[in-house]
Amino acid sequence: MNNSILYQEISEQPAVIRRLVNNERKNIEDIADSIRSKFSYIYIAARGSSDNAARYAQYLFGIHNHLTVGLATPSIFSLYQEPPLLKDALVIGISQSGQSPDILSVIKVASEQGCPTIALTNDSSSPLANAATFVINLQAHQERAVAATKTYTASLTALAMLSVLLNEHAAALDNIAELPGWIENTIEETKGVIPRVERFRYMEHCAVLGRGYNYATSFEISLKIKEINRIIAEPYSTADFRHGPISTIHPGFPVFIIANEGPTFKDTANLVSGLVDLGAEIILVSNANIPNLYPVMFFHIPTEVPEWLSPIPSVIPGQLFAMQLALERGLDPDFPAGLGKVTQTY
Amino acid sequence: MNNSILYQEISEQPAVIRRLVNNERKNIEDIADSIRSKFSYIYIAARGSSDNAARYAQYLFGIHNHLTVGLATPSIFSLYQEPPLLKDALVIGISQSGQSPDILSVIKVASEQGCPTIALTNDSSSPLANAATFVINLQAHQERAVAATKTYTASLTALAMLSVLLNEHAAALDNIAELPGWIENTIEETKGVIPRVERFRYMEHCAVLGRGYNYATSFEISLKIKEINRIIAEPYSTADFRHGPISTIHPGFPVFIIANEGPTFKDTANLVSGLVDLGAEIILVSNANIPNLYPVMFFHIPTEVPEWLSPIPSVIPGQLFAMQLALERGLDPDFPAGLGKVTQTY
Repeated sequence: MNNSILYQEISEQPAVIRRLVNNERKNIEDIADSIRSKFSYIYIAARGSSDNAARYAQYLFGIHNHLTVGLATPSIFSLYQEPPLLKDALVIGISQSGQSPDILSVIKVASEQGCPTIALTNDSSSPLANAATFVINLQAHQERAVAATKTYTASLTALAMLSVLLNEHAAALDNIAELPGWIENTIEETKGVIPRVERFRYMEHCAVLGRGYNYATSFEISLKIKEINRIIAEPYSTADFRHGPISTIHPGFPVFIIANEGPTFKDTANLVSGLVDLGAEIILVSNANIPNLYPVMFFHIPTEVPEWLSPIPSVIPGQLFAMQLALERGLDPDFPAGLGKVTQTY
Repeated sequence: MNNSILYQEISEQPAVIRRLVNNERKNIEDIADSIRSKFSYIYIAARGSSDNAARYAQYLFGIHNHLTVGLATPSIFSLYQEPPLLKDALVIGISQSGQSPDILSVIKVASEQGCPTIALTNDSSSPLANAATFVINLQAHQERAVAATKTYTASLTALAMLSVLLNEHAAALDNIAELPGWIENTIEETKGVIPRVERFRYMEHCAVLGRGYNYATSFEISLKIKEINRIIAEPYSTADFRHGPISTIHPGFPVFIIANEGPTFKDTANLVSGLVDLGAEIILVSNANIPNLYPVMFFHIPTEVPEWLSPIPSVIPGQLFAMQLALERGLDPDFPAGLGKVTQTY
């Protein structure tokens, strides 16, 4: 489609997920066996795209494992140097580079306090990997484009595997094993629609909405659009959107919505109808066939994808949308001006 | 200054906080004595402005009480009906109306599981108050403007009192008792600057940045601007802003920043310098005297306000900015089109 590094890395995702499922299954099973029932809640430290993976974890471990998941506020550890007592917590640090000083400080403190800790990283010899009790390698190989794509879907998949193996619910691994095919299918379907991104050449802002499992997807698609295009793209849960931000919608306002079948579907579809009435331009990602929602663009993901795994293929149209929009606008999708791959946050 | 309900309610804040400190101190002390050491972490359910109060709680209880604070994902309880096990958690529901069905569902489940629960509400006879073990009344009297102001600062103050009394650190209550005076002073100082909001009559978007304790303030000021003005105002931690969104900054881009003295000050001041270099228009709220940061507008809060209480006066310039901007734009600051006071979220 084009010769950007970003497109190449987006296209590698089926292979990355296949490698992750094959190579890390035994390791994640061993980790699950070691930590099972040794904690009463999960605490995750992450930034950027990895923080969006942590949002997915809140629903995943909440609904499947009945565990609460808290997201760390790393500055409490780094700037304020007043770490909380992490008694009873399983502490997970997510960082593709494994270099981020503030994520590292959370894992170090957790280890000192005797908590089980897991590093989810694409670099098994990174400082984060060295500081954690257990390491899950994302198996994504080097990621060169500034905008994370394959390390994001790999993080989600690794979390899904951990959730399933903690429950000793091996049958659900069969669903995970289908992900590479679903991702391939989504990339192919999206390629047919993506030239129409031209319509959004002059878009100056948009909202990105999702709820439940796909709350994370709305944050990640929003981040891709912002990082690569310097466009204001604000993420919301559909529920919060009704609490105020909906008042910013005027005719022609572009709204990206992830609406997959599941408990959140009806509410999301209702919101879409309301937004259509307000004149919004709807860009829809869904595993349902819903022409009566009148999207201006419709990205279909395979119908058989279950909601709990749907954030993995659902982010792909957003990755490709952000890439294509940059190309239409004459921007470099690989190395957006002013951003570096590893951000040193203290 | 004007006869809007919003202005009246903003102006009531010193009286509300004084009433809260006087009337609820004994109650909060009793609650603290009853629950102390009966939980190992805090879990808060809230939406909208109350969710921003919960963000403040993450830093407050984290730094002062060494407790982790998780923010609930209410749809796990309501839509998915798969509540997590809340073992070892103190569960707090924050809702000024006490009517929100999804916040109520979290408190009900927590009570059934035997967790201590606290309702922070402005209505002691609301369903939320009835479902909780303990009730803290925000003492804000009826709030009629759609945009929450006095119930927000009351929620922050009630949380600060609970944090202090859990620690049996009564001396810090003297700081809290000074809040009404600091708020009065901030309102007076802000009134002198606020006519210059006229400059932003044609603003179409802005970013709002804060970190640490004032991460919450950035979310709340952003929400006020969005609710009342239908303008896109995106909140960020200064740390996350560097991870991508900074690439959206171009000359003339308005950036609202909360920068109070404390561990986050140096980092925030550095970011301000970088943004000035990029040509951003800086609107600054600070307890420091920092003319060398070249703000286009500068809102000063009293120098003696400690960082941990600074979110309470620091939000006031944002409330007044949002109100004044609506007046300049010919909008109704009290009842923005399309929004209701109580949002029924399931």
